[in-house]
Amino acid sequence: MSKYWNKKINDAEPYVAGEQPKAGVKVIKLNTNENPYAPSPKVAEALAQFDISDLRLYPNTDGGELVQAIADREGVKPSQVFCGNGSDEVLAICFQTFFEKEGNTDLPVLTPEFSYSFYPVYESFYDLRSKTIPLREDYRLEKTDYEGVPNCGIAIANPNAPTSRAISLEDVAYICEKNPDSVVIIDEAYAYFAEPYETAVSLLDKYPNLCVVRTTSKSYSLAGLRIGYAVASEELIEGLKRARDSFNSYPTDRLAQKVAAAAISDEEYHRQCRAKIIATRKYTEDALKEIGFTMPPSSANFVFAKPPAGVDAGLLYKSLRAKGILVRYFDKDGIRDHLRITIGTDEEMRALIEAITEEIANVQNS
Amino acid sequence: MSKYWNKKINDAEPYVAGEQPKAGVKVIKLNTNENPYAPSPKVAEALAQFDISDLRLYPNTDGGELVQAIADREGVKPSQVFCGNGSDEVLAICFQTFFEKEGNTDLPVLTPEFSYSFYPVYESFYDLRSKTIPLREDYRLEKTDYEGVPNCGIAIANPNAPTSRAISLEDVAYICEKNPDSVVIIDEAYAYFAEPYETAVSLLDKYPNLCVVRTTSKSYSLAGLRIGYAVASEELIEGLKRARDSFNSYPTDRLAQKVAAAAISDEEYHRQCRAKIIATRKYTEDALKEIGFTMPPSSANFVFAKPPAGVDAGLLYKSLRAKGILVRYFDKDGIRDHLRITIGTDEEMRALIEAITEEIANVQNS
Repeated sequence: MSKYWNKKINDAEPYVAGEQPKAGVKVIKLNTNENPYAPSPKVAEALAQFDISDLRLYPNTDGGELVQAIADREGVKPSQVFCGNGSDEVLAICFQTFFEKEGNTDLPVLTPEFSYSFYPVYESFYDLRSKTIPLREDYRLEKTDYEGVPNCGIAIANPNAPTSRAISLEDVAYICEKNPDSVVIIDEAYAYFAEPYETAVSLLDKYPNLCVVRTTSKSYSLAGLRIGYAVASEELIEGLKRARDSFNSYPTDRLAQKVAAAAISDEEYHRQCRAKIIATRKYTEDALKEIGFTMPPSSANFVFAKPPAGVDAGLLYKSLRAKGILVRYFDKDGIRDHLRITIGTDEEMRALIEAITEEIANVQNS
Repeated sequence: MSKYWNKKINDAEPYVAGEQPKAGVKVIKLNTNENPYAPSPKVAEALAQFDISDLRLYPNTDGGELVQAIADREGVKPSQVFCGNGSDEVLAICFQTFFEKEGNTDLPVLTPEFSYSFYPVYESFYDLRSKTIPLREDYRLEKTDYEGVPNCGIAIANPNAPTSRAISLEDVAYICEKNPDSVVIIDEAYAYFAEPYETAVSLLDKYPNLCVVRTTSKSYSLAGLRIGYAVASEELIEGLKRARDSFNSYPTDRLAQKVAAAAISDEEYHRQCRAKIIATRKYTEDALKEIGFTMPPSSANFVFAKPPAGVDAGLLYKSLRAKGILVRYFDKDGIRDHLRITIGTDEEMRALIEAITEEIANVQNS
């Protein structure tokens, strides 16, 4: 509390990101869904070729060659792409642009009951009403639950976090179709790890109310670079630009634009990293099941795993932490019996399984 | 207008940044107050040493070594520093955090009548009331005009843009003192070009309501990198972090942090560029006066110059543009008879003076 902060800031309940260990502290870091592999070697080339004297000039507001690289990759026009400082910023701007404030409407934003924990933060920060839609068995999202529910907008992570489950493009299309007056945000931060890979970008021609949000953080190993983007109809993109230009005209810097464009151009490397992560996910799921865990089918670069009976997820989280292995634990009704575990390298996941096996043996012997 | 945008976005009047010519188009660019010199050679070193595998990890939320470099440079604690994606973002977050919204208060934000044109955009975007305080003769700001005027906050650019005039630290202290319940934002984007150089950071110990906003864009030649920061009491900085963590936890990326920290560490280079710009400013002022221009005394890396009688500033702006020289023209009551001209290299300014001389001769002969 401070007399210098306004009411909104005094009331705010900010997002709490997963723990980032200090530089030099050696841990196995499976808590923030980062990619275990370095970004494409083309990133190093782009940096080596970068002319630092360019930094004295403001960036191109619209992201220039980066927007072009994304448009090429996604098969859309550059005017259908909006770049921001990470997909968190892009999502924040989407909530701020498409969803209506209290006072203008009483209708809520719909989100799945268990989803990205930044959504309720945006809702509260932008004075939006919110309504969470329960998931079904095993955290499954049922598309008909988004039909006939009055709303001012919908945001769904696909695959969902922390549950790791995906819905089909048919489901996405159904939800867009049943809510033609609302913008439907599909947050595809993890979409590249689904098998088969598919993106709602392919539905844009049919749904002017669909806004697909993507990021280079996970699939391109660029969480440290902060480049996210939205792909949508020109009408929606124009709205996002109006919001951006009302608070910060240049959210993506020249270096980040160059580096992200280079990474996006290296499709082959991107594919290889994905294949490795999918293989390691399979190993992890099998190994966890073998020691009694259960989990919904993962389409993401993490699993959402429930320890065997008698093993408390919160305590397991703490003992792993004590062993230098960070996973994510949400102390929240309905999910506090699960751990969200990022897929790291094979070696990291073997170390995780070994540590968990040891802990479970300790619990069972005590 | 779009049915998918909410009322705020439909009503918004976004900021319009100065024109950025397309890559490859050769112009003399004196319209957006960029530094004409490349950033420090230490920037190239930092890039060469950067380990790209670090990019797979999220940045330190608080800016890590960059915050430390700024704290060292400004002589404050790291907890008194808030980094953002350019000072535009930092200013936006300040307006959003410290100034009160309509409904909670009827008091306006005070700003000088002619000042940074993003301020009214923030005010409107964050539903703030606003009151502009007229400047005195020759665009001089009189400190007593900020006394006894009920307000929810004050924002002053010092030196002011586009007028180029500075107020003294005594004036800043006076305004803070007379408004103890309001946060006073002093936007020092151009402070490093004043002679002598002084910063309101030196007043922070006395005024918990003072928030100094600075940027690496102009003085460190890093407009393309998007690193701005606020220096203030821990109480104010904590408020800014609460706002940041309500919409985007990681606004500064790993590369930008590294590069900005390297530039800030090179004090000697910084000083040399400043000296060159101040010398060129002197040349420009003298040369413009010689051909009949008048202008307030500049403490910035630009001048705010009024053409001689009979020469229309708007037409002069256009003819310079036709000759490949971009300056900034604001078609607005009270300042439409001036041009804002960035200080470039000596060569660029000679070309400008030559072009202006030619134009004036044309006007006088026609």
